[in-house]
Amino acid sequence: MNTSPTEDITQVPGGCGPLLPAVRAASVPLRQQVLDHVRAEGRAARAGIAQTLGISAGSVTALTADLIVMGLLREVAAPQPRDPGRGRPRVALEVVAEAHRVIGIKLSDEHHSAVLTDFAGNLLAEASLPIAPGRKPLEAILAELHALLARLYTAAPGGARPVSAIGIGLPGLVDHATGRVPWSPLLSERDVALKHVLEERLRLPVHVDNDSNMLTLAELWFGAGRAMSDFAVVTIEHGVGMGMVLNNRLFRGARGMGLELGHTKVGHDGALCRCGRRGCLEAYLADYALAREAATALDLPPGGGRQATLEALFARARAGDPAARAIFSRAGRYLALGLSNVVQLFDPALIILSGERMRFDYLAAGEVLAEMQALGLPDSRPPVRVESHAWGDLVWARGAGALALSAVTENLTG
Amino acid sequence: MNTSPTEDITQVPGGCGPLLPAVRAASVPLRQQVLDHVRAEGRAARAGIAQTLGISAGSVTALTADLIVMGLLREVAAPQPRDPGRGRPRVALEVVAEAHRVIGIKLSDEHHSAVLTDFAGNLLAEASLPIAPGRKPLEAILAELHALLARLYTAAPGGARPVSAIGIGLPGLVDHATGRVPWSPLLSERDVALKHVLEERLRLPVHVDNDSNMLTLAELWFGAGRAMSDFAVVTIEHGVGMGMVLNNRLFRGARGMGLELGHTKVGHDGALCRCGRRGCLEAYLADYALAREAATALDLPPGGGRQATLEALFARARAGDPAARAIFSRAGRYLALGLSNVVQLFDPALIILSGERMRFDYLAAGEVLAEMQALGLPDSRPPVRVESHAWGDLVWARGAGALALSAVTENLTG
Repeated sequence: MNTSPTEDITQVPGGCGPLLPAVRAASVPLRQQVLDHVRAEGRAARAGIAQTLGISAGSVTALTADLIVMGLLREVAAPQPRDPGRGRPRVALEVVAEAHRVIGIKLSDEHHSAVLTDFAGNLLAEASLPIAPGRKPLEAILAELHALLARLYTAAPGGARPVSAIGIGLPGLVDHATGRVPWSPLLSERDVALKHVLEERLRLPVHVDNDSNMLTLAELWFGAGRAMSDFAVVTIEHGVGMGMVLNNRLFRGARGMGLELGHTKVGHDGALCRCGRRGCLEAYLADYALAREAATALDLPPGGGRQATLEALFARARAGDPAARAIFSRAGRYLALGLSNVVQLFDPALIILSGERMRFDYLAAGEVLAEMQALGLPDSRPPVRVESHAWGDLVWARGAGALALSAVTENLTG
Repeated sequence: MNTSPTEDITQVPGGCGPLLPAVRAASVPLRQQVLDHVRAEGRAARAGIAQTLGISAGSVTALTADLIVMGLLREVAAPQPRDPGRGRPRVALEVVAEAHRVIGIKLSDEHHSAVLTDFAGNLLAEASLPIAPGRKPLEAILAELHALLARLYTAAPGGARPVSAIGIGLPGLVDHATGRVPWSPLLSERDVALKHVLEERLRLPVHVDNDSNMLTLAELWFGAGRAMSDFAVVTIEHGVGMGMVLNNRLFRGARGMGLELGHTKVGHDGALCRCGRRGCLEAYLADYALAREAATALDLPPGGGRQATLEALFARARAGDPAARAIFSRAGRYLALGLSNVVQLFDPALIILSGERMRFDYLAAGEVLAEMQALGLPDSRPPVRVESHAWGDLVWARGAGALALSAVTENLTG
């Protein structure tokens, strides 16, 4: 397994450079395809655009002329050919980075995170806000969101310049199309019209989605999914989530709220989940499940909080404590079972294991992958590839920014 | 729940009439879209084709002229308008039914089934062959297949006229794209190049697929899925299978061999499955699982075979025998768990429960659906609709025929 723990956003493949949009389906308007291609390339010549998108030079000239008039693309000098003596000076195109700014936000259980990017996808500022854990009323979350945005604007170069859209990811059942949240472990209320409320308060277009979908977008735009048309992402943090890219597009389920791997049942009358049901996969794997087991079986100093409990559990397992190791061992066996079910149902070529908890390398050990293989049907093909990324929350927030950027681009060029 | 037990193919919605191809994605060639539309309608006027497909009258004239020259469409008199005095006699188009014949086959554990249809999708003949149950070498299956085809040709009007393609569905991991079968509960061998072997023996194009995919195609073309762009099918027979239609197309998983719901694990160290693993969903639900439990807990006459055991179990449960009822009750709870997992991951608007075992109405009772709902996350939307169809094997075979017909049409018009 390729484990690459990364706490710092600058270590993300693709780093702070421009976002790389995936190959687009044919239904995406050509103007948007041109803009996305130029953004992915950084600088692109018209001839290269025509070749990549399979359209005529004349079409490219017309489309780019539109985008230049709209203030979204501009001409820049291209790298000179080896023999600069011949022909006219070469011209390339780049995205007008300062044309728009977008914000991406990850709402979470211990700290919220935000990034500000320009229209070319460059990271301009980042911020995070530690918060009290646990379920809260919407109004409390909104207050935290305001404090987070204040920090982000303070860190932003040029101060609080206008922002064109905000993308927000949070755990739970989130209907991206309507912006409603039927259930989230962060919210006391059920069926919250989150997009509507936020757009009223912030006076900005807001796009909401499940947080694992945001991370999946981040992997698709500038992570391990760049080279893949189809892959699965399984996230282990405060909960267990999943995202799936099919044919270069995020698959959200037939009605938009699927992929709830953490709440698939791995048995009747099993461990109690945050959602109130029993036997959910995440009730064996997530932060709160491990912390609950540690509190039961280990003598831990009281009042340390969940994070301290987890760190103590991990330290003891490393030191060889059998009770601590048994807790991780069981979690690993259930992770193997969950991954095996993902393989049986979705048959992906690649599963990306992601989330800060992947630092607990017991969860991504060779035995877990061996058990995942052993649980599957006999298959003569090469086994599914599993990669492990311990991205920090800012990468999730960048995925949320990618969602906002994508929506702004679609609006402008559609 | 809408339970409509149907043993006879003539009771299928759409009956023995023409197949109804689904709305096609834009990537399907226009000629094929025209042919599929006419086949679905039975008879269609050029103006209606233009309107439905959103293309010009001139394009329709050119495309239909091609198809008429190819011998695939022909002109027929259309129903006359109310005022026959005005205008020219009306002309419609229909598929040349006798242009091609295809065969659809379901390989199974107790009897194989086959249908012969014409190019318009009309059923011409059907046949089935009782066989000895259990895993067999490929050569034994091929011998059974020859006997089945002999019966079908005997029943065919006009005898053994040439057939253009055969579609074959069987349980297990089946790679439709390559025609290989890495594992099937019917086959002693692993990784069989089934399409290749059959094409050599039968001297015909052969298309193989997982049997649940075939039934899902049957639901899409002439069943409850006709009106739906996205739905799931869960089959309970000798095993437990699944098919999924997304955006009017069969979803086979990212690499083509997903949707193996029967082999998702519902616990560690659970009931033993035919595949040799433990804890597979089908090891709690399928024929062999119920028969195994009946043999353990009930006094049954020896030597009756699995079918007789199942019938005796069902009769005792109906008569109120607590042990028999407990067997169905446990199976029902695991069915609820499996369906809940399908909902959590795929978020379908409709789940069709299908397979002969749906006659055991304990498996489709209100309690099962109530438990499925209770296991899911809180969701403010209307609950997923669940329908139950006890189709006989000939409907599965018609799905296999639809696959063959689709491949022939694509070849001719692509």
